[in-house]
Amino acid sequence: MDATLPGVIVGALSILGILIALLLRYKISRMESGTKRMIQINKAIRVGSTAYLKRQYKVILGVMVALSILIYSLDVMMNGGIPFIACSFALGTICSLLAGYIAMDTATLTNVKAAQAARESETKPLKVAFSGGVVLGISVVSMSLLGITGLFYLYWLLTGDVYKVPLLIMGFGFGASLAALFAQLGGGIYTKAADIGADLVGKVEAGIPEDDPRNPAVIADNVGDNVGDCAGRGADLFESLSAEMIGSIIIGSVVFLATRNLYFLFFPLMAGAAGIAGTLIGALFVRPRRGEAPVASMRKGMVATCITLGVLFYLVTLPIGPGYVYLYVASLLGLAVALVVEAVIEYYTEEHKPLKELVDSTKTGTATEILMGLALGMEVPVTPVITVLAALGAAYMLGRSFGEAAGIDPHIAGIYGTVAATIGVLSLTGIILSMDGYGPIADNASGIIEMADLEEEVGSDVKDVLDAAGNTTKSLAKGFAMASAIMASLLLFQAYVDVVKIKVYNLMEPRTLIGLIVGAAIPFLFSSQALKAVGRTASKMIEEVRRQFREHPEILDGKIEPDYARCVEISTKAAQRYMVPPTLVSLVVPLVVGFLLGPTAAGAFLIGVTASGIMLAFLMNTGGAAWDNAKKYLERIGLKGTDEHKAAVVCDTVGDPLKDTAGPSLHILLKLVNNESIIFGAAFLAYSLYLLG
Amino acid sequence: MDATLPGVIVGALSILGILIALLLRYKISRMESGTKRMIQINKAIRVGSTAYLKRQYKVILGVMVALSILIYSLDVMMNGGIPFIACSFALGTICSLLAGYIAMDTATLTNVKAAQAARESETKPLKVAFSGGVVLGISVVSMSLLGITGLFYLYWLLTGDVYKVPLLIMGFGFGASLAALFAQLGGGIYTKAADIGADLVGKVEAGIPEDDPRNPAVIADNVGDNVGDCAGRGADLFESLSAEMIGSIIIGSVVFLATRNLYFLFFPLMAGAAGIAGTLIGALFVRPRRGEAPVASMRKGMVATCITLGVLFYLVTLPIGPGYVYLYVASLLGLAVALVVEAVIEYYTEEHKPLKELVDSTKTGTATEILMGLALGMEVPVTPVITVLAALGAAYMLGRSFGEAAGIDPHIAGIYGTVAATIGVLSLTGIILSMDGYGPIADNASGIIEMADLEEEVGSDVKDVLDAAGNTTKSLAKGFAMASAIMASLLLFQAYVDVVKIKVYNLMEPRTLIGLIVGAAIPFLFSSQALKAVGRTASKMIEEVRRQFREHPEILDGKIEPDYARCVEISTKAAQRYMVPPTLVSLVVPLVVGFLLGPTAAGAFLIGVTASGIMLAFLMNTGGAAWDNAKKYLERIGLKGTDEHKAAVVCDTVGDPLKDTAGPSLHILLKLVNNESIIFGAAFLAYSLYLLG
Repeated sequence: MDATLPGVIVGALSILGILIALLLRYKISRMESGTKRMIQINKAIRVGSTAYLKRQYKVILGVMVALSILIYSLDVMMNGGIPFIACSFALGTICSLLAGYIAMDTATLTNVKAAQAARESETKPLKVAFSGGVVLGISVVSMSLLGITGLFYLYWLLTGDVYKVPLLIMGFGFGASLAALFAQLGGGIYTKAADIGADLVGKVEAGIPEDDPRNPAVIADNVGDNVGDCAGRGADLFESLSAEMIGSIIIGSVVFLATRNLYFLFFPLMAGAAGIAGTLIGALFVRPRRGEAPVASMRKGMVATCITLGVLFYLVTLPIGPGYVYLYVASLLGLAVALVVEAVIEYYTEEHKPLKELVDSTKTGTATEILMGLALGMEVPVTPVITVLAALGAAYMLGRSFGEAAGIDPHIAGIYGTVAATIGVLSLTGIILSMDGYGPIADNASGIIEMADLEEEVGSDVKDVLDAAGNTTKSLAKGFAMASAIMASLLLFQAYVDVVKIKVYNLMEPRTLIGLIVGAAIPFLFSSQALKAVGRTASKMIEEVRRQFREHPEILDGKIEPDYARCVEISTKAAQRYMVPPTLVSLVVPLVVGFLLGPTAAGAFLIGVTASGIMLAFLMNTGGAAWDNAKKYLERIGLKGTDEHKAAVVCDTVGDPLKDTAGPSLHILLKLVNNESIIFGAAFLAYSLYLLG
Repeated sequence: MDATLPGVIVGALSILGILIALLLRYKISRMESGTKRMIQINKAIRVGSTAYLKRQYKVILGVMVALSILIYSLDVMMNGGIPFIACSFALGTICSLLAGYIAMDTATLTNVKAAQAARESETKPLKVAFSGGVVLGISVVSMSLLGITGLFYLYWLLTGDVYKVPLLIMGFGFGASLAALFAQLGGGIYTKAADIGADLVGKVEAGIPEDDPRNPAVIADNVGDNVGDCAGRGADLFESLSAEMIGSIIIGSVVFLATRNLYFLFFPLMAGAAGIAGTLIGALFVRPRRGEAPVASMRKGMVATCITLGVLFYLVTLPIGPGYVYLYVASLLGLAVALVVEAVIEYYTEEHKPLKELVDSTKTGTATEILMGLALGMEVPVTPVITVLAALGAAYMLGRSFGEAAGIDPHIAGIYGTVAATIGVLSLTGIILSMDGYGPIADNASGIIEMADLEEEVGSDVKDVLDAAGNTTKSLAKGFAMASAIMASLLLFQAYVDVVKIKVYNLMEPRTLIGLIVGAAIPFLFSSQALKAVGRTASKMIEEVRRQFREHPEILDGKIEPDYARCVEISTKAAQRYMVPPTLVSLVVPLVVGFLLGPTAAGAFLIGVTASGIMLAFLMNTGGAAWDNAKKYLERIGLKGTDEHKAAVVCDTVGDPLKDTAGPSLHILLKLVNNESIIFGAAFLAYSLYLLG
């Protein structure tokens, strides 16, 4: 195969993806926006979200500039001062910010259209909200592929050395994960502080419904959905995909050295392009029908994507050459992993035994429900983690035996098998993100319906359906993000190994062991800071809402409008301030370990972070979702307002920052430390050799 | 030095320790027991505790017999059918059960004497309770040393091969940790289910004070203190010390091979004997004074022990030969680690910034306090873990440079340095256990005062002092247990390495990596089962207490006595039933990993369990203690009954099973999996070689 052909195919499909997303966005923008009041509310949310992102992006761009200088020192060391890495870093950061912006823009554009659609028919709002999700899903995936492919060919042209290119474009992955971490943390702190403030004082103390316009924190809460869930997850999955692509290309370059087969570098990109095609086809199958749960219809889309990919993967492995069918099998294993993990997450969060026991525990109060929820969350990681490990192990063994038969280094062939499996998972990003984008859009639509006093017109059924599906798709997307996080970070560890060219990370070596255990401590420290940030900000928000109700009791009678802006201000300021310490931890500790304990300890550190981080992420994401669903279950069976329900509301409040701030940020943490260590790996190595004289 | 001399010294000191403990116990038993009502209550607690332990011990002895048969197959494989390992396993189990029994017996003997002493003077109850603690501390340490020393010399005599002996007596450590895990889990489930039941219905719903005789769960609650906190921690520290001693002797035997210096085998025992002497001397310095906090006086005892050990360690390292002063320095590092970890735990649980922020968060309710408590708990592990790792790293480096200078394998010398540091920590077991034993005795004494209606006579000040000190010493003891758990399990990993004779545990090897990550998942699964056990049992207990109040409202008027026995029965049955699944997990998974993935993966598995287990243990133990202390703080500043206090009570209830069931059981889990893998290491190896043909 000609070396430019994959570039042309991937580039064409990415551009096609972007064009389709733009077209779809245009179609959404032409839809009806409803009443004056709806437009007004939508404008408030949109203005608040844009204002927040602007401030956040300023901070991130500042950090980017500072870090670019540090990274440029690597360019001086490795590339004779030509800023290859620094530029790819800057581009990655900017693209990730753009992905977050697109997510927010799409969501705030679509929410009011979905709300208006709810006034027209029962199924239309689901369709509109899902269209918004597709805009987001397709554009994020296409942008990632286009950016990486473009950089790859550009740097190849400039350096003339295809083997060297993957490491130079790694900056793109690092930049993407840095921006994503800021976006997810900042957005997560913002949204949960607002949410807790709105819920605890509004719903529990004042007894007004969710999204009631009398609640001073209501606009902040709705802005939060867009800047946290939407922009956050958009940036998260953008960086997941990008980092994993580049990591695969790095590993591919090692296989290329062993086989002189260039296609090993292109295979990840081609599989990514297949992902775009699969998403487009899958999305066609999402046709919400009357009486059918929206999740069921989205699941059809996911199955269609899987089937399409099952065919396309075969086509994209073909050019590698005969006998490489093992890569096809490995990529199918990846698809299977994604489906199993989704099933496990669903088992723990939907109406099955675990959730029923959790609901039962509300009878004896908050304390027992917290305990049972923690217990549930701690049990969750076991099955998905073992599934992922088994699939990776099987893919490795397939590769090994192929390598032995074909006369290629069996270890290298085995590792490339795990790459194919990881690609299998990640190629679902587009469709997952489409489903995930639905969540906050539906949430917002339902908020607008409530605030614009349209509930009677629309009927509470439609509103409930909008809400419930969003919850499920969000938790499925997080399950996917976790599975892809563990696979991507193990893949990036392999890329790190290839960069520092150290083949033994021996746990008997004290420094390696220390690196590993310090790594295992980091996700705990990181989560602690994230939770504290939410706790502190929420306290301020609670006090502010209480103050407004106390000083202006007329607010509760609906006679005067509350001071929304003050609440937006509190969340904004706190998010900016508190997103910095955990990010600093994630940036500084890998460098300290790498330079102080050496590149081998730094490798073990990465494994430590991955091992404990993934457990905590499953615990927090799924535990949080289960508490949320337990509360919703009680509401559904008509126990709203009972003691059980009150206990469940408290537990849901505990779960919120676990599942929407700390948990999803952990996914990014895993990849950030890996990306950073890959970038600085050569420097760790050089410094440790210098110390040895 | 003659090879029998260390045995004589250690044996003599252990027997002296046991005699002193017996004498002290006799003195306590001759004290006044107070009023008829007090004697009656004491009898109820003592009978309940004994009955519970009897049932629990039957289960454990049954498991012991079953496992002995499995272990005997190792004897057939390795020792020509002579049941060396099986016998040491049985002895270890029985001694550990005995340690638990002694702890329970001492506590239930002393509690009523301390209550009576409270009627006589202000300082006397502290003295009496601490004496009970000393009986426990001294006898547990002495019994462990005597058992190991006896077995060591006996097996040496029988086999004639001193190098082979350490592995044969490892059964003692495995038996001890198995019994300890059952004891801690069973006791922990029992005590917390009773405690939660008593508190949530009695204190929160019915509004009667703690330990009120009208509460049906009050006897179960007081029994729980003895079978959970007392018997559990007694068995825990017995196995910590035993496993660590034997692990050190295994590593010592490798150094012996390299140096032909037998004293490397005896050094751990001699240091343990120094620990007995240090505890006896330190205990003399604990003289509660009027107006002085009891913890301050105990701290004097601990400082005196440390100083004594600082001198004695020098004497016990002397016989190794000139130049081995590095081992002395390493053992001092161990003492320093213990002090630092204690200081950190105190910082997070006493009245400093973190606790104040936690107390503050109660203003905005239960949810924010749960979040801030989780955040606090997640921050805790960082400093202690880094301290432990730094000390081990320094001890290793000291050993390496000594080894290089002296012409001994630097790695072996380095590892022995870490052994000395670990011994430094563990030699404090006696004094720590004495302080820890004080806790449940004081708790019970205060319960007896309440139930026997003596509060007015005694004055609530004395009662509060009894309570508060117990809380602090318990959390300090847990800090110590955690530090010793991480050090002991890293030491045991080294012993495992020496047993399977595999020198490389490479994280690049997929099976090793899988072993490690599966290991990291186990503490989560284990904790999940422990918490579920408490949650489920507590729900039953809550329903039973509610039922009694509902069906017999006269109970609350004090007209009829509640059905205490029914509550005791519920806790007993549930503890027996639910202690089995987590124990099975801890027993089965290491074998599955070892046989399925091989001895290298099994080694990495151990590190995985240690890394994630220690973080969770710190999180749960310290987080739980902080919630407890936040509640106590609010009571102290007179906010009892406010909304803040109610939130704090719920959080305390959440923290209880974290800190008294799952957390302390995790310490034992870490060592159990290590002990088991050491015992079965040779079998893993043989099987994997067999598979390879």
